[in-house]
Amino acid sequence: MPQRVAVVENILNANDRLAAENRLRLDTAGVFAINLMASPGAGKTSLIEQTLPRLTGKLRVAVVDGDIATSLDADRAAAAGAQAAIQINTGGDCHLDAVMLQQALNQLDLSKFDLLIVENVGNLVCPASFALGTHLSVLVASIPEGDDKPHKYPGMYSGVDVLILNKIDLLPYINFRMDFFKQGVEILNPDVVTFPLSCRTGEGVEDWTDWLVGRVATFKRG
Amino acid sequence: MPQRVAVVENILNANDRLAAENRLRLDTAGVFAINLMASPGAGKTSLIEQTLPRLTGKLRVAVVDGDIATSLDADRAAAAGAQAAIQINTGGDCHLDAVMLQQALNQLDLSKFDLLIVENVGNLVCPASFALGTHLSVLVASIPEGDDKPHKYPGMYSGVDVLILNKIDLLPYINFRMDFFKQGVEILNPDVVTFPLSCRTGEGVEDWTDWLVGRVATFKRG
Repeated sequence: MPQRVAVVENILNANDRLAAENRLRLDTAGVFAINLMASPGAGKTSLIEQTLPRLTGKLRVAVVDGDIATSLDADRAAAAGAQAAIQINTGGDCHLDAVMLQQALNQLDLSKFDLLIVENVGNLVCPASFALGTHLSVLVASIPEGDDKPHKYPGMYSGVDVLILNKIDLLPYINFRMDFFKQGVEILNPDVVTFPLSCRTGEGVEDWTDWLVGRVATFKRG
Repeated sequence: MPQRVAVVENILNANDRLAAENRLRLDTAGVFAINLMASPGAGKTSLIEQTLPRLTGKLRVAVVDGDIATSLDADRAAAAGAQAAIQINTGGDCHLDAVMLQQALNQLDLSKFDLLIVENVGNLVCPASFALGTHLSVLVASIPEGDDKPHKYPGMYSGVDVLILNKIDLLPYINFRMDFFKQGVEILNPDVVTFPLSCRTGEGVEDWTDWLVGRVATFKRG
């Protein structure tokens, strides 16, 4: 039994060690990296599509997309203007890990970018447990998912730095108790930075991109 | 290395063995069981809330709810008229497994029920890999999740018997290419039984509940 526990610890340590290596590599190259997480369909790729055109001329951006299958998301990121878009197909894995990001970094000339957006596998559970080495964890929640998600997925909601609340254009058509949602967030993560927005209408997207540009500038100043 | 592989195989076999035990127990008691899976917020609990009142006087129903945390879902199932509602809190686990269902079955007098609805953890990846011993796998998809989900989550879409397409009332407000969605489903799972419906308006729900009542009757006749 002690032997089996040791194996599990080694796996976790390996991921954390590789995540630290990824971080060092990004820091050395001056690339700010974000880990974008969400349920399937909350709007990670749509957010990237809305974000990239607003960063043109301000930041050089690479996108790494993690999915079980297909390159649909990387195709969309490339079409939206990413200077580089890399798709990781995890096979069956329900999250990205530091090894996968390392492999993607190997395919990028980091000197050419200011910002790396890593789009994790759509999943509100597993990605929260695997550090990648990124600087900022961003969760995309969405109105149609329902107001109870912070209460039911505390691991994800408590561990992120930024909360994007997407699809606010659907508020008139859905019973979403904003107070109940905010209460769940407040208990778990009172310092999270929140951006309500709609990737469909564009409402609120510039608050997010303006903040992001500022955040990268702060990082670049060291 | 061979030893480590052997451990993984034992874990899988243990789950499958316990799933078979659960199935035998359900069969012996004449209880038809469904494994309800979906993304977070696709509408599993809402479907249960819409389904239960339509089964009153026809089927005696127990509900087992799996979540990372809280008893919100079991509370809703009980309020909607489930004769028994049991919440399983998985801690951090991203799916139910056969052991968890076994523990829930231990708390039920199976002779009192015709139908058991097991609501899995909200996740489009992990639950597909763990048999519970249920008779029918049901996936709840929803319009706001987007039309690319069959393409991106083939493991889940290929393994289910029934596909509920929820939130059709939101079709006018969302860019959802029904052809692209159906094409993905058709490739992976041409025989899946599909029910488009809206848990918000009730449209289409009776097609599903009528079918379910018939399916349980067929099961009961053996």
